[in-house]
Amino acid sequence: MKRNHDLKIVGTSLARLDGVEKVTGKAIYTGDVTLPGMGFAKVLRSPVPHARLARIDARKAESLPGVFSVLTRDDFKGINSRYGAIHKDQSIVATDKVRYAGDPVAAVLAMDEMTAEEALSLIDVEYEDLPAITSIEEGIAEGAPLVHEQWFGKAELRGSSYGAPDKFKGTNICSHFGYSRGDVGTAFAKSAYVFEDVFRFPKVQHYSLEPHTMIANFDQDHLTVWSSCQDPFGLRDQLAGIFNLPLSHVRIVVPYVGGGYGGKLYVKAEPIAAALSWKARRAVKLVMGVGESFKTVTRHSARVRIKSGLTKDGRLLARECEIYMNTGAYADAGPRVTQKAGYRALGPYRIPDAKIDAYCVYTNTVPAGAFRGFGSVQVAWAYESHTDLIAERLGIDAVEFRLKNLLKKGEPYTPGDTPVDCDLKEGLVKVAKALNWTGRSKPGAGKGLSVCLKDAGGTFKIAGATVRMSSDGSVILLTGTVEVGQGSKTALSQVVAEELSLGLERISVAQLDTDVTPYDVSTSASSSMTVMGLAVQRAAQDAKKQLFEAAAGALGCKIRELKLKDGKVHAGRGKSLAYGGVITEYFGSKAGEIIGRGIYRDIRTKKAALGATTTFWEVGWGGAEVEVDRETGAIQLRKYVSVADVGKAINPLQCEGQDEGGVVFGLGHTLFEEMVYEDGQLLNPNLVDYRVPKFGDLPEEFASTLIENGNGPGPFGAKGMGEGGLLPVASAISGAIANTIGIRFYDLPITPEKVWRALQAKRK
Amino acid sequence: MKRNHDLKIVGTSLARLDGVEKVTGKAIYTGDVTLPGMGFAKVLRSPVPHARLARIDARKAESLPGVFSVLTRDDFKGINSRYGAIHKDQSIVATDKVRYAGDPVAAVLAMDEMTAEEALSLIDVEYEDLPAITSIEEGIAEGAPLVHEQWFGKAELRGSSYGAPDKFKGTNICSHFGYSRGDVGTAFAKSAYVFEDVFRFPKVQHYSLEPHTMIANFDQDHLTVWSSCQDPFGLRDQLAGIFNLPLSHVRIVVPYVGGGYGGKLYVKAEPIAAALSWKARRAVKLVMGVGESFKTVTRHSARVRIKSGLTKDGRLLARECEIYMNTGAYADAGPRVTQKAGYRALGPYRIPDAKIDAYCVYTNTVPAGAFRGFGSVQVAWAYESHTDLIAERLGIDAVEFRLKNLLKKGEPYTPGDTPVDCDLKEGLVKVAKALNWTGRSKPGAGKGLSVCLKDAGGTFKIAGATVRMSSDGSVILLTGTVEVGQGSKTALSQVVAEELSLGLERISVAQLDTDVTPYDVSTSASSSMTVMGLAVQRAAQDAKKQLFEAAAGALGCKIRELKLKDGKVHAGRGKSLAYGGVITEYFGSKAGEIIGRGIYRDIRTKKAALGATTTFWEVGWGGAEVEVDRETGAIQLRKYVSVADVGKAINPLQCEGQDEGGVVFGLGHTLFEEMVYEDGQLLNPNLVDYRVPKFGDLPEEFASTLIENGNGPGPFGAKGMGEGGLLPVASAISGAIANTIGIRFYDLPITPEKVWRALQAKRK
Repeated sequence: MKRNHDLKIVGTSLARLDGVEKVTGKAIYTGDVTLPGMGFAKVLRSPVPHARLARIDARKAESLPGVFSVLTRDDFKGINSRYGAIHKDQSIVATDKVRYAGDPVAAVLAMDEMTAEEALSLIDVEYEDLPAITSIEEGIAEGAPLVHEQWFGKAELRGSSYGAPDKFKGTNICSHFGYSRGDVGTAFAKSAYVFEDVFRFPKVQHYSLEPHTMIANFDQDHLTVWSSCQDPFGLRDQLAGIFNLPLSHVRIVVPYVGGGYGGKLYVKAEPIAAALSWKARRAVKLVMGVGESFKTVTRHSARVRIKSGLTKDGRLLARECEIYMNTGAYADAGPRVTQKAGYRALGPYRIPDAKIDAYCVYTNTVPAGAFRGFGSVQVAWAYESHTDLIAERLGIDAVEFRLKNLLKKGEPYTPGDTPVDCDLKEGLVKVAKALNWTGRSKPGAGKGLSVCLKDAGGTFKIAGATVRMSSDGSVILLTGTVEVGQGSKTALSQVVAEELSLGLERISVAQLDTDVTPYDVSTSASSSMTVMGLAVQRAAQDAKKQLFEAAAGALGCKIRELKLKDGKVHAGRGKSLAYGGVITEYFGSKAGEIIGRGIYRDIRTKKAALGATTTFWEVGWGGAEVEVDRETGAIQLRKYVSVADVGKAINPLQCEGQDEGGVVFGLGHTLFEEMVYEDGQLLNPNLVDYRVPKFGDLPEEFASTLIENGNGPGPFGAKGMGEGGLLPVASAISGAIANTIGIRFYDLPITPEKVWRALQAKRK
Repeated sequence: MKRNHDLKIVGTSLARLDGVEKVTGKAIYTGDVTLPGMGFAKVLRSPVPHARLARIDARKAESLPGVFSVLTRDDFKGINSRYGAIHKDQSIVATDKVRYAGDPVAAVLAMDEMTAEEALSLIDVEYEDLPAITSIEEGIAEGAPLVHEQWFGKAELRGSSYGAPDKFKGTNICSHFGYSRGDVGTAFAKSAYVFEDVFRFPKVQHYSLEPHTMIANFDQDHLTVWSSCQDPFGLRDQLAGIFNLPLSHVRIVVPYVGGGYGGKLYVKAEPIAAALSWKARRAVKLVMGVGESFKTVTRHSARVRIKSGLTKDGRLLARECEIYMNTGAYADAGPRVTQKAGYRALGPYRIPDAKIDAYCVYTNTVPAGAFRGFGSVQVAWAYESHTDLIAERLGIDAVEFRLKNLLKKGEPYTPGDTPVDCDLKEGLVKVAKALNWTGRSKPGAGKGLSVCLKDAGGTFKIAGATVRMSSDGSVILLTGTVEVGQGSKTALSQVVAEELSLGLERISVAQLDTDVTPYDVSTSASSSMTVMGLAVQRAAQDAKKQLFEAAAGALGCKIRELKLKDGKVHAGRGKSLAYGGVITEYFGSKAGEIIGRGIYRDIRTKKAALGATTTFWEVGWGGAEVEVDRETGAIQLRKYVSVADVGKAINPLQCEGQDEGGVVFGLGHTLFEEMVYEDGQLLNPNLVDYRVPKFGDLPEEFASTLIENGNGPGPFGAKGMGEGGLLPVASAISGAIANTIGIRFYDLPITPEKVWRALQAKRK
């Protein structure tokens, strides 16, 4: 094992490999790809939130000059038009009903986008309106109209079980996660104090700079798709299923991706593009506008009821949690997000007795799926606001209360799962110090802080990587991790460079293409640096082993005498040979190469609550200092402090960037963002009416601190990061606001108007 | 070892995997690739055959609206503008001199081809004419003007040595190959008969349906090239050298290739496209017209003097051979072709004493490079015509003479090389029988036959392949063999399908991309089915081994109990599991795959004349029956019989297609094709004036017979084929003509005009 103080490349903030390419506009994204004879697609979307599709007639549209093809429900012969990450509840385009305003009803392929757009207006559709539900409350109300008449029950995904038992049949609940330990009833009865609060989280959108974009090309019995997606292998599975193709006949190529944040996980509109290409036998480009991405996937709005029992001296005894997640019209990843929201609802605290129920509810709104934080964001907002409230009610300082109840390093989160792998206190103290937290936080100081805990995703993780060293000693890395902007290309290359003692400029990363890139489960759950990082490190080590074997022959010495340094194999006594020389010598000519392979697989365990232990724990500590303008309700963020445990920062600058990026994402749903519905219609699917954070919204002081204990499971002691920073933002800022104006908010975003109204109400 | 009678997929004439794609026009070739912002390039070519480049001024061209950039010699700062397969004698565009009419002088990048074309006319060039040489005779004449003032001496390519010793300094000879055994002087003195003849072979062009086409895209310090080429890894080497890039920063992607025949081996115009992209920082498309391909690469015209000594009863005792190959203005692969022409000049005969000298000569004509047959065609034309002449002079039947002198199976061609691996007599007898050859061929019968021998190329061969089985049991094959139309995609897939007992429809071949495809030395020398075939077979076997290991666990039995059949692993007693089930079981979910790797490497030996033994011997037997119209000289091909030893035909129909294709190629240079020069100008670089065979030129009876003894070194006993059919064509047809009109021709092509003139001369 390499000792960390020997590291030369890992641990340094090298410039991004994709930096120049991206800032000069040369980087190729899916939208830049052009194929011969390619047509352009547009999607006709339902104008109503819920209706029976009485009639659809595309003949007029089909006869418009320049239109190649129109796809409607009448075309699904010989293919399986239904798909979905967990429940197959979604159809390529609507068949029986439309279920939200924006639901795809038909799609047009034409010679250009304008012609396609024009043809959309010529498609004759008759809707028979049905009553619509848009909120969780409407969704779970007795006798609520059903979004799906079909009952999907239980479902499997990558070896885990989701869905709901049959007792929920005839309701809009499509998935339930239950967890309990001990006996909460008895524990509450024993408790000196019992507190209960209800929190709400709004529906928000990922808002990737690059909206959903894809190109599909059916050629005989082969389908090739270029897509801005985060899990090409999962997409391949789904498309193979739809078109009855072997996996070897479906090829997904992933150019650069302009942001994902979970919104590009699982299948999005790729089946529409692929089905159009299948019908028209022509390459299809489908580029969504930002408004269409708003109508494609969102984060789950949520209602979280949380109840805690405590001892007289403020120790947590029991917790009950009831979580409703609004998954919109189709389940997408909702059942998994709901499961994770439920599992993560206990937070970083020691709570002997607990009972959790999390429900995933269909409504007639845009489907909700994976989104940075993956269920944690909603429950962290709730449990950390609730933690503040308990401390306040007990008259204990918020830091002191937390320190009393935090799990210790090595304690289990739930029995059977990986024990907590870092010192939760350490980060909290860092945040408190950075905020000059002085004993009991004085009212009016405007300070708040939070600490949140998140496992690394419940999917059974598997990743493969290949490291190819060519005959000049330079290296190409094949990895299935998608460069979504997080810097994976650079950081993974640094792992290779370190292992092989090569300059970063000698390493390239091959384009991701499911035909040739080793399998990877997906780019998600902050896991790539650990999961793919290990696969990459092992591939580099495998290449190194082969290089040593070849060099031992070439230099006439024993493998154990050899060392790699700066692109050369050194044998002591001044004898050395450049890698290229080793390979040339070994193969007898410049023809040849070394190919190293690495694989990482999670260990599955029957004892863990979710069937798999977590690969690592991601912790987010955050602290905020705010000022509130009592006349206008405006919130001024004076300071924000974020602390992240990264194990070992492979590229510190990138880690800080990820952590700060997470915080800024949190500012969005804390202070600005909310998708607003009226009569089932989304009112603000655009940047004018939907407000994301701007540079002017950044905290005046903004610091991100990395904790590096070198104890992560990833390469060189690294662990995942990139979501932790996001988790504490809402509760920390809300706590700071409460601390300054004495008003606690229970739903997000906390807009100036809300603050102003609350201040007005308080004055009365 | 699988016994051949068990084969289910190998040995059957399955339809081509790329057939439908190609005939429907959906197959993507390099010319179909489009990149954002891409410009179009045109090349300014020298109008004169030899001149000093006094001045070049591109300013006017550069200022033409729509022109992005103009490349001239003034741009070569920071790159190595000189390149070449063996001698670095070629420059991206001309620097000091132009050396043939057509030599690239400058290149323009513009918004479209017409603008680029227009800009060419605005480039101001001043040439100072120099005396030009176009023929071998002019090239080797005492005091001949030098095509290259620089002396290149010896050079290395993939571990072999080429070039010429310093005694040739100051001449146009850029390479010499010498071989001798025994003592020819003494042997000739002992001979009862000594005969000497001189033959000439014309300069001909490959005439691929798709002319040279390439796209280059420089992005920061990475270069990506899409090219219609046959050796992407060799191209990568050269481009990395020119632009000082590590191999990992140069990526070559090869879409479908519309014919290669050697004309797309080594570097062609890719450096022009790449340098334009390097200068303009923009993607560059360069599509040549057919006339430009004529000015890019050709086959070597040749002069072969051949002298044999014989015993009284017609046994060959000695041979002396002097070969001059006209390599044009740049060496390209000329030194290798010359080496091979020399090495192969002994033909399939037992000749105790031999001396060969082969010279590669620069002239002011289009460079000559690799071309189907690779030096064999020129010498086979000579040695088999010479064989006929000897038999005739001795009054021995041509078949009888050959049978007397043919090497036996197991006899060495030269000491140290692989012994002859087939029965040369077997094929000859088949041809004779098919022609109804009756004892001594009667004059007037119009029959001729030939037998030719060719080693599998002197390059040290290495190939890697990967077989990936996905979680549904379907397979993707990664291979560096270029599908140039020869059917490699289908045949190599058949090997995988057979090994893994899978239907061909479950197998796909990934796009060739040097970033991800394992190294392969090149698609050449009829070797892919043997060399890559073995790598592919081993990769499939490696995957099978892993599949067995996983299945043994899943089915709870020993590996030796397992069998693969029709996509399932069978364990006896009715227990079986589909491959997908095995993988899913092994990985615990659908996430996972099996990756098999295979490598083939030639064995290098010090004893062989060329430093490596041949992988296999390719034999071509051919027989022709002709009728000559004595009034017009028109030659009517009544019958052509071709026999090929393929070891084992993986796909018999494809083998026959390759063999027949080879014959038709031979018809071209035998009867029609010749590049005609006048004053250093090529007069016929187009299909109107340069005549390739048409369907109407096919023999009235045309049969191809495959010999399958299952003794090849390739998978299932296969050996290479595809060039053999070409070799005997010229001498067999010429022999048939001589047999019918009593006139022997010594130079090709044998046009009606030549025949008519010869008949006229004979009558006088």
